[in-house]
Amino acid sequence: MNKRLTPDEIGEQLGELDRWTEKSGKLHKEFVFADFSEAWGWMSRVALVAEALGHHPEWFNVYRTVRVDLTTHDAGGITAVDFALAAKMDALAG
Amino acid sequence: MNKRLTPDEIGEQLGELDRWTEKSGKLHKEFVFADFSEAWGWMSRVALVAEALGHHPEWFNVYRTVRVDLTTHDAGGITAVDFALAAKMDALAG
Repeated sequence: MNKRLTPDEIGEQLGELDRWTEKSGKLHKEFVFADFSEAWGWMSRVALVAEALGHHPEWFNVYRTVRVDLTTHDAGGITAVDFALAAKMDALAG
Repeated sequence: MNKRLTPDEIGEQLGELDRWTEKSGKLHKEFVFADFSEAWGWMSRVALVAEALGHHPEWFNVYRTVRVDLTTHDAGGITAVDFALAAKMDALAG
């Protein structure tokens, strides 16, 4: 899971996600929810997934907005586990 | 609660907190916990307080680190409710 993906592999897999972009070597997306309660509920579900994966997001929250960056520091770039977490985040956002 | 504090008032109240600073018109602090689980547990407790106060932080989390900025947008600066939330964050961090 921890092999750094090539630009081609990243481009291909980005096409399978919903509005994620590659930004400074990280998978990036901004999620906007109805309010803080909904944003927090989503973050809480993601936190459980992240902890189970042993792979944690960089994320910024203010009220109903959550900005996420995913990368694998050990691999020095984006790996399959970043895409796995991104897909799970989309699924949990409904 | 929503009157923007003066620089003197901010300086005085900062002295009563644990290592908060004023940065770009916001109360700023970095919290570092043992691991993600502990960081998340703290954030969850803070989230309940924030929702009850109707006043939410700007915060960034990566693994065991949480960087917090507090300001009151309606007031255009730092108010008493920012200090109330900051004090509660310190108390919950133990």
